[in-house]
Formats: sequence, structure tokens, C-alpha cells
Amino acid sequence: MSGGFIGIDWGATFFKIGWVKKDKILRYKVYPSSCLNSISNFIASIKTFVNESKIRNLKGIGIGCPGIIDIKKGLILWLPNIKGWENVPLKRILEKEFECKVYLDNDANLMALGEFKHGAGRGYKNIICLTLGSGLGGGVIIEGRLLHGRGFSSAELGHIPVTLGGRKCSCGNRGCIETFVGIEYITRKAKNLLKKHRSPIVDKLTNNNLDNLTPKILSTAAKKGCEISKKIWEDTGTVLGRYITGLVNIFFPEAVIIGGGISGAGNLILDYIRFYVKKYAMYPQNETTKILRAVLDYKATILGAKEAVENLV
Amino acid sequence: MSGGFIGIDWGATFFKIGWVKKDKILRYKVYPSSCLNSISNFIASIKTFVNESKIRNLKGIGIGCPGIIDIKKGLILWLPNIKGWENVPLKRILEKEFECKVYLDNDANLMALGEFKHGAGRGYKNIICLTLGSGLGGGVIIEGRLLHGRGFSSAELGHIPVTLGGRKCSCGNRGCIETFVGIEYITRKAKNLLKKHRSPIVDKLTNNNLDNLTPKILSTAAKKGCEISKKIWEDTGTVLGRYITGLVNIFFPEAVIIGGGISGAGNLILDYIRFYVKKYAMYPQNETTKILRAVLDYKATILGAKEAVENLV
Repeated sequence: MSGGFIGIDWGATFFKIGWVKKDKILRYKVYPSSCLNSISNFIASIKTFVNESKIRNLKGIGIGCPGIIDIKKGLILWLPNIKGWENVPLKRILEKEFECKVYLDNDANLMALGEFKHGAGRGYKNIICLTLGSGLGGGVIIEGRLLHGRGFSSAELGHIPVTLGGRKCSCGNRGCIETFVGIEYITRKAKNLLKKHRSPIVDKLTNNNLDNLTPKILSTAAKKGCEISKKIWEDTGTVLGRYITGLVNIFFPEAVIIGGGISGAGNLILDYIRFYVKKYAMYPQNETTKILRAVLDYKATILGAKEAVENLV
Repeated sequence: MSGGFIGIDWGATFFKIGWVKKDKILRYKVYPSSCLNSISNFIASIKTFVNESKIRNLKGIGIGCPGIIDIKKGLILWLPNIKGWENVPLKRILEKEFECKVYLDNDANLMALGEFKHGAGRGYKNIICLTLGSGLGGGVIIEGRLLHGRGFSSAELGHIPVTLGGRKCSCGNRGCIETFVGIEYITRKAKNLLKKHRSPIVDKLTNNNLDNLTPKILSTAAKKGCEISKKIWEDTGTVLGRYITGLVNIFFPEAVIIGGGISGAGNLILDYIRFYVKKYAMYPQNETTKILRAVLDYKATILGAKEAVENLV
């Protein structure tokens, strides 16, 4: 088959690659990111996918990268969780290799673009998109365009301090929102509480082994009535609600869209966020900003990457 | 004289009006805002200024308002510190009355625009502008344009929570940055500390009466070596530094420009802000974002209002 675009969601753990034509993902594959330990392996992985998919006349490659990108130059500045990619001019390298246009941006930015064009953000012009996983990633669309600061892959919405002092964050600062809502933090906090206050519901779901605890189990347990699990989501929803109220006061968006693993808790956290935004954001935003769940799951960044490279936003 | 624009900086206390032609303020007057207790008095004040200045063929009136504006409609939604202006279509009223174009925006937004076009922000494309006075106002310029969210006078940068819990803010929320850096808060905190730990330097500057204490006296005292006053600015600079680090991580601007009464403390707070941004903002922003003092003083909003109505941004 001929034409179409490749969209890539390059995470710290998985490298997800899709062939997109007319807004449909025709083929999709996941590699462990550890395979990409050099530029030549990176190129080889894409080549394998292109060959297996029998793609001819590829129009472009869009890549959502887990770090800070100089989007004008197509330069990876640094990736916080993957070493060895400092100052790599990946756009130039791939353009030469694949003879098509290439666009690099932050993964959360392209997730935001995907949801904006094809998901929960359709029909709006101004959205904030958050992805809650091991960290907190964010993208902001203003009047239909991604916020890029001075040509870099802002907005780093995970690295906003939400308390005075606080725990050390991966960025070096203290008290960033990421230190309150990352999967590891939530799970560790829950484990500590559940060691002190045993929950028969959680015990059953984890086979009496708290090492099996996951955010998904915490959601299930909360829905089944476990008070400790409910408390964990209340705390997470509260800190997110206060933080998102601040973002709403900054951007006055039509919608805040929340995706990523932690968003699987659904209304267990979204209802708190809605409560805080409604009660504390400035009028008229408090009454009109919608708090929505992302709908595209793994497709969001891939479709966003395709949109970005197609239109070179 | 003929032509030119009127720029207005409408604060909760003072109403400052200027006649601007070719980027020069030809005439300038200050009224107490309490005179403007009705729309007819508002119109009369402008008429008096126009008549006194002998302005013919006025091209436009730009107004920086102390509150939330629907900028597309030219509608005042509400002003937190002035009652009775809810849902007033001031643009339409003034356009009819003065037969020229009219533009309304938030005062801090127009201050940002003024500094961007004629002050500390000249030559940049992306800036954040903060005005530190009784509250904290903010304006953001992205790629040369004011951030307006969905057509409202965002960004309400004073109402971002910077701590969990915290004191009640005028907006109804708790722990907003405004509750840490407003003039009243700083002065009250300083008074309480100075009652416990007397400072001969402050005693002299206040004639032994702490009711005379002002942020200006605190600056002078700190420069003369008063440890309590230094501590007050250290605390203010620290909370601002952490908060501005978050803003830099969101917007990746070229410069953050700080004006308003509290900015009179100069390097007593700016050095802390520079320290935090350099140490904790994400690379490359930490190394390149400039922290600057606003330079236009009272002229900023008036010149910004003129720019806004001239170009209808």
C-alpha cells in the first residue's frame, strides 16, 4: 500500500508505532523501548515496521518523545528517563534516512493534539490535556494550536510546585504535582496505609500480597467499598482538583481532558476535580469548563503525531 | 489637537487616564476610582478629560479593567473589588457615546502588552508579566499575542494555589499565590515579626510606629541591614521563585517581567526568583529565561491599552 504517515508514541518503557492513513491506524506495533539504545537501532525499528507493513511513498513520520524537544530544529534536547539522547538532531537524521518529512514533539503534546482532533477535545478550540501515568504529562491547545513557548515542547505541566517544600521530584525541584499523582507514589502511599489498616477487599484482590497492588486494583477496591482505597482517590482527586483549578485560571479553556493509567479511576478522581473547579475556579470558567476523560487511549499520541507531521504545527 | 488614543488604567483605587499619540503620553490625569460609581459618571470623567485636553477626532479608547472581561463582546463580567459592574456592556456604551472604537481587557493583560511593546519586553516574543501590588495580576504573551483563553481576559495568574490548604483568598479558594505576596499580607507579617523582634532600623524609619510600615520601608530597612526585613523579602522571593519556576515550565518564555509596588524591592526579591528559576526550571529554560523588572511604571497599562485598541488584539 502507498502513502500515509507513521505516528510514534515513544515512551520510557514502550515504543508504539502506527501507520495512519485517512485518520485510521492501519497497522500498529509495540516494541520495548530498551531496543532503541542507539540511533541505528531506532532507525532499524522503523525500517522493519515500514517493510513489514509494505508501505511505499511514506509521507511523513511524527514522533512523540518523552522529553524536551526543540521543535523548530527537530532536536532532542534531553529525555529525563532515557540516557544518551542529548542534543540528537533526530529530525534531520530521519528525514535523510526515510526521505519524508519528520516532526518531533513531546509525547504529551501530541497526545493532546490527538484528543483535540479526534477524541474528547473535538469541537473545542482551547483545551488542557493531562496524562497521568508514572509522571504527569501535559499539552495545551490555545485557539487550535499547541502551546510551544519559544519553539520548545512546553508545557511541562507535571513540574508545577503545588506545595511549599515537599518531596524531591525527578526534575530536581520539590513538591511538583508529579510527586503527588505518579503511579509509584500513589501505590506506595496506599501500601503503607494498607499495611496499617488491613482491607479484606484489597487482600482478596491482591491474593493477600500487597506487592500485587496496582492503581487498577485500588479503583476496583474503592468501587467495592474499601475505605482506604476511597481515601487514596479522594487525596489524589483533591490535589489534582486544586492544581487543575489553577490551570483553568491560567488558560480559561473549554475543557480539561484527562488520560493515562491513573485516569482509569474515572469518577473516583474526576468528581473531585469537577468539585474543585466548579467551587474555586474564577467565574465564568468554574461554570463552563468541562472535565472529561480522554477517549483515544494508546491511539491519541499516534494520531496526534500524524496530525502534527501532516500539518507541521 | 487631533487624533490619538485614550488609554485607561482602571484600578480599584485610582483611575488613570492618558492621551497617547505616536507612543507618547501627551496628557495624563488620575482620578479616584470612587468617582466612577455609575456608568454616567464613568462617561463624564472621560468627557472631561477629552474636553480639557481639547482632543478632536479621537481614534479609540482602550481600558484596562480590574477584573474579568469578555473581550470579544467588550463586556465586563465582574470586578472583584468594585461592586455594581456585573455584565455591563461597556464597549458598546462607550462606542456609541464617543463614536470611536473601544477595547476592554484586564488591566494586568494590558500592562503586559505595554511592557511587551514599549518596555522591558521589547525584542521578545514570549513573556510573562506579573504585577505585584495589593494582589498579583498577570498577563502572558505567546508568539507576540496576549493569551486570552476562550475570549476572556485570562490569565488570572494570582489565583494559582501554591500550597496545600493555606489561607483563604479573595477568590474563595485557599493558598493562592496572591495570599503570600499581596502588600497587606507582607506588611502584616512583617509587623507581627517586628513586634516580637524590634529593629532599631525599622523603628527609625517608621518613627517608632509600626502602623507606618510599608513595603518601601521594608526594602530600605533590608538594604540598611535589618535582618527581619531581609527575612521578609527572602520568604517573598522564595515563594515567588517557586511559583515562577512553575510558570516558566508551563510557558517556556524568554523573559518574566515583574512590576507593581512590591517589585520596588528589586533584587531583594528578584535574586531569589533568579536563583529558583536557574536551579529548578527545566533545561533549557533555566539557563535562558530572563527575570527582569518592569520599566514603564504607571505608563505600562495606558500604553498597552492604546496598543490594544489601535490593533484590536
